[in-house]
Amino acid sequence: MKTLEVCFSPDLLPLYPLSEKVVVVVDIFRATSCMVAGLALGVKSVVPVATLDECRALMAQGYVGAGERDGQHVDGFDIGNSPFSYMLPQYQGRSIAVTTTNGTKAITRSLAAREILLGAFLNLSAVADYLIGQPHDALIVCAGWKGKFNLEDTLFAGALARKLDGFFDTEDDSVIAARELYANMQEDMYAHLQHSSHYKRLSKLGIREDIVYCLEMDKFNVVPVLQGREIVLKQ
Amino acid sequence: MKTLEVCFSPDLLPLYPLSEKVVVVVDIFRATSCMVAGLALGVKSVVPVATLDECRALMAQGYVGAGERDGQHVDGFDIGNSPFSYMLPQYQGRSIAVTTTNGTKAITRSLAAREILLGAFLNLSAVADYLIGQPHDALIVCAGWKGKFNLEDTLFAGALARKLDGFFDTEDDSVIAARELYANMQEDMYAHLQHSSHYKRLSKLGIREDIVYCLEMDKFNVVPVLQGREIVLKQ
Repeated sequence: MKTLEVCFSPDLLPLYPLSEKVVVVVDIFRATSCMVAGLALGVKSVVPVATLDECRALMAQGYVGAGERDGQHVDGFDIGNSPFSYMLPQYQGRSIAVTTTNGTKAITRSLAAREILLGAFLNLSAVADYLIGQPHDALIVCAGWKGKFNLEDTLFAGALARKLDGFFDTEDDSVIAARELYANMQEDMYAHLQHSSHYKRLSKLGIREDIVYCLEMDKFNVVPVLQGREIVLKQ
Repeated sequence: MKTLEVCFSPDLLPLYPLSEKVVVVVDIFRATSCMVAGLALGVKSVVPVATLDECRALMAQGYVGAGERDGQHVDGFDIGNSPFSYMLPQYQGRSIAVTTTNGTKAITRSLAAREILLGAFLNLSAVADYLIGQPHDALIVCAGWKGKFNLEDTLFAGALARKLDGFFDTEDDSVIAARELYANMQEDMYAHLQHSSHYKRLSKLGIREDIVYCLEMDKFNVVPVLQGREIVLKQ
């Protein structure tokens, strides 16, 4: 049977041989939620880059520039890291270059994988269906917060693991933990996350609406995938 | 208020400034359980070393040699990694040099800490009481399995966090997760751990008795602490 694992931090990726695996990168608050929402509503592609300078260089070539550090929109970039910005009508058909604190690092460190998908609660079932229909082992890579474990990405991992039950071997310790946490918190993730570190950071920034939106389930039946350096929708 | 965090892997220790923190290293199956049990029953000291060769060199100087790799006793060493070996009467008053797959690495990577304690279910309350009575922030370092997250060390972290509630700020995401997992699994940790990867590895080795013993609570009112290169009981 195919196996499923969860990597709780991009800093632990060296422990996982990636070449035969499909990786699902998740950064619920907010990078992968933004990308899923934007691509689902007509953004042409998203290019994740590690640094603000790389992002500026792509802006100079005509890309929309999305720059975030420590949860905040960086001056000089078109947008920050809110899903509502990615969904603005003027970005339909455009390509967005994006650099964030955690999510883009998780993507760029997973490049050795067979395939890199983006997961969020917004496209949970679509990602699950895709993984079930393909033959390879899967690894969920949680973006975390500056290398540390975080709760919201772990809850997504648990939700995805539950959907993969019966199709994947889900008895890795990381998967057991993520599933158990999701099972206990799914009824009111928002309430549980109010105690979390990232919620507190983000709520200070006045983006409660973003948080609520990023916890909505299955709004989009899309699977974003990295092709070359661009993330596009899987056809 | 003092803060509590949990580091789920020794490979994530570079993310945590250690110099002002008290670190509690935990490797439930079985290194810290062994050390707690042995020291409580009269072993004079334990010297953790990273390699089998270092361990052999200390044996040549008169130390009892404990060598384990991948869960198994390494040929040529007096004992492996069973708590029952550490408790044998002939080792009372002796010093044990020990190298294991995970636990000793967690100790040697935590050397920058203000103080390093050993925790196990066997001395859970003693460690909690000590932490409550001292003024510094605390970090629980889970030994994990070859750098990866494991369930049993996380459950210990959750159990310890619960005891520290009210004395430490326990709202770090890692602490929230560990506490929630312990709250849900404490009634029958053995049953939950039967699904875990490490249980399966160990049960193949025929050491179910070790596992059951390592899950027993508060058998010993001792706090092992690293002094120089030796682990001894805190006086």
